[in-house]
Amino acid sequence: MVLISAQSADGFITFHDEPGSGFASSSDRSYFRKALAGFDSSIMGSATFQVSRSMILGSLTRERRRFVLTRDPARYAKDASPGMLEFTGETPRALVDRMKGEGHLRCALLGGARIHSLFLEAGLVDELWLTVEPCLFGAGVPFLRAPADISMRLLGHERLDGSDTLLLRYSLR
Amino acid sequence: MVLISAQSADGFITFHDEPGSGFASSSDRSYFRKALAGFDSSIMGSATFQVSRSMILGSLTRERRRFVLTRDPARYAKDASPGMLEFTGETPRALVDRMKGEGHLRCALLGGARIHSLFLEAGLVDELWLTVEPCLFGAGVPFLRAPADISMRLLGHERLDGSDTLLLRYSLR
Repeated sequence: MVLISAQSADGFITFHDEPGSGFASSSDRSYFRKALAGFDSSIMGSATFQVSRSMILGSLTRERRRFVLTRDPARYAKDASPGMLEFTGETPRALVDRMKGEGHLRCALLGGARIHSLFLEAGLVDELWLTVEPCLFGAGVPFLRAPADISMRLLGHERLDGSDTLLLRYSLR
Repeated sequence: MVLISAQSADGFITFHDEPGSGFASSSDRSYFRKALAGFDSSIMGSATFQVSRSMILGSLTRERRRFVLTRDPARYAKDASPGMLEFTGETPRALVDRMKGEGHLRCALLGGARIHSLFLEAGLVDELWLTVEPCLFGAGVPFLRAPADISMRLLGHERLDGSDTLLLRYSLR
């Protein structure tokens, strides 16, 4: 599983109290769209789903099945779309095992902070693809929701098409 | 003035509650020593001074005059060493103006978080040289102490001598 996220240079995945990744550059958005095409499934938390709900509901596809982790799947029953968009209260491990059993081999983990912490703590993340925007926020939602002590290996670092935005790739193994 | 700092990939300048930058890699320490040689002066906060006090007192030099910003300069009178180590309660702007007047043209700003915020808010930082260690902490002292909305230009990005540590250079202008 690949965790894909964008943040300020000082580690915030939102700009102050503004929900979502509206601060992300057009370079990041363009890279993100292309990167997602390489995955057959994605997982996100309910807060992340709510921020992008209309965009997601308008772009459902069997090519990339979406899973939303929530403590209250029933609440989202109207939005669910079998084989395309599912809401589940499973543990990260149970969900990932089920997805593998159903043939999903390339999953993108799309946040937010609570989901990052949950899946990293469970040892389910193979790589982190981190977009670093050229800005400092000093406040916002941090990348993780809980203390951690995680070492990574740097796989690569590149500027996104001539912008001031960096893409860092790390291996968690 | 160049702000020089090391942080985890998620933006913490300490590992959890551990004071200082003990988490920094040997690659960063080696780069930091070489980088400092290019400066004729440095500024740090009193917390940063206290963590490195014995190292600093053992390496005083007229080649790089050190200034420690504190609300209580008298408290440090015993450690002061004219022309080499000074404690001051001046504002960032007043200190920088005085330093320029005394011929200091290359100043390194060495943290911590409160100092970062103070000097950035005052518009006194020209560049940020940010070491990004390949780790996630989820908790610790953040890079800034206060909310900010700062845009930067990426000057460069490089791996420090074959390590997994990155050096990012940004311009604040």
